[in-house]
Amino acid sequence: MSDEGLVRLRLDVSYDGTDFSGWAEQPGRRTVQGELQAALARVLRLSEARLTVAGRTDAGVHARGQVAHLDVEEGLWAAEGERLLRRLAGVLPPDVRVRAVRPAPEGFDARFSPLFRRYVYRVSDAPGGVEPLRRRDVLWHRRELDPDRMNAAAARLVGEHDFAAFCRRREGATTIRELLRLEWIREGEHLYAGTVQADAFCHNMVRALVGALLAVGDGRRGPDWPREVLFAGVRDSAVHVVPPHGLSLEEIRYPPDAELAERARSTRRVRTLPGT
Amino acid sequence: MSDEGLVRLRLDVSYDGTDFSGWAEQPGRRTVQGELQAALARVLRLSEARLTVAGRTDAGVHARGQVAHLDVEEGLWAAEGERLLRRLAGVLPPDVRVRAVRPAPEGFDARFSPLFRRYVYRVSDAPGGVEPLRRRDVLWHRRELDPDRMNAAAARLVGEHDFAAFCRRREGATTIRELLRLEWIREGEHLYAGTVQADAFCHNMVRALVGALLAVGDGRRGPDWPREVLFAGVRDSAVHVVPPHGLSLEEIRYPPDAELAERARSTRRVRTLPGT
Repeated sequence: MSDEGLVRLRLDVSYDGTDFSGWAEQPGRRTVQGELQAALARVLRLSEARLTVAGRTDAGVHARGQVAHLDVEEGLWAAEGERLLRRLAGVLPPDVRVRAVRPAPEGFDARFSPLFRRYVYRVSDAPGGVEPLRRRDVLWHRRELDPDRMNAAAARLVGEHDFAAFCRRREGATTIRELLRLEWIREGEHLYAGTVQADAFCHNMVRALVGALLAVGDGRRGPDWPREVLFAGVRDSAVHVVPPHGLSLEEIRYPPDAELAERARSTRRVRTLPGT
Repeated sequence: MSDEGLVRLRLDVSYDGTDFSGWAEQPGRRTVQGELQAALARVLRLSEARLTVAGRTDAGVHARGQVAHLDVEEGLWAAEGERLLRRLAGVLPPDVRVRAVRPAPEGFDARFSPLFRRYVYRVSDAPGGVEPLRRRDVLWHRRELDPDRMNAAAARLVGEHDFAAFCRRREGATTIRELLRLEWIREGEHLYAGTVQADAFCHNMVRALVGALLAVGDGRRGPDWPREVLFAGVRDSAVHVVPPHGLSLEEIRYPPDAELAERARSTRRVRTLPGT
């Protein structure tokens, strides 16, 4: 980028998704992309600031580790530098924050360079309900959950598969993904965190996987059921897509700097229509 | 209690203090006590349910470990038992939850039996602002904080003192308290948690102590200053009382069952007007 007098900035972003219609800009809706682009344009005095994002989260989904990039003129960055962070903090609403902003390494593309995306879904089976201060990012499950059963079922889904059974169908898009990690840990009394990590996700995939595992965890289904659904290869109406508020995008992992450009090239090649 | 056909129930309570005018019932205000008592009266079909609480938190202060007690007829408890927890969950608003309810041991008094109260104040000095999902329970401090400086100053305040310098004056109330623990730990990147533990607190004491320590942490004051204020013995207008939303009542510790009644008797004797 620098040969055209442009510098690509990497932004690390967090948000509380409760009051957003998701990441992606939509006319007349309050979106994370819309709020961020407006704040950047204002602070940098641009007519438009256009962000490219790693994970296009749905309405109500949170992020602690979202990554986006923005190309700006070198002179503009030189004039702002680290000051930009505090200026953005003063302009942005409190439910979206930029944690860091810095020039990206050569070949970096927020959307196409990632090695994987890591989401966490949080659920509580406390009989009295979710801790009030966590009610915006933890689902209340009224039936008791057995994390060992959920992990047994989860282990049978890991690997490269066609996840069509857990995806909302989109014309022309491949639903083959590599699920790198799917496991539940206890994060507190009655609080379970499910980590779902993949090269990329198709639409609804994380929330449909979690829905299938919760049905195993509370005993409504056996530990083999989610794998049977997977291999059936078609959307199963018995798989309940869990609500968005338990879900948070926690991390986007990029390869070492020297491999960024090659990773972006190969990702573009493989995916007809990349997922969130 | 049981000799009169009454059973004393211990309730463990959590709340998000954001939308409450504090714990204590006030006509025309939304309070935690008011919401809880209304829910209990409704579920138990009583004309009135009267709670006694361990920590009367101020408006905006949260709780993860609040404790209260309620005396009810034995037959009523026998009929409800553990079912009461789920019924309360269905009736209470989501910003207040009862985590546990069970018969209290002989001699238990939520207000007078505690050995100590433990509060935690959370503050972030992240240049970009507080993580959006924590903005309801973490204060944003715009200046960089040094936790070692805060701990050096804190250590000089521990012990039994007259905390009049850090208390809002109340007629006839003693301001002598035993500060058992005051220390800061790092809970995350740019996130600090200050634990404040005492037998009891006078009004505003935790938030005034935290205000004095933040002034040390960001370099506006030296590490000896809070102790100088303490020994001056009068309210110092230079001590800033920090906002309530960073504060959470985390734990009420009671003595072993055999010592509950004696602890309550001695506490009543010592304190003319008990603190929060």
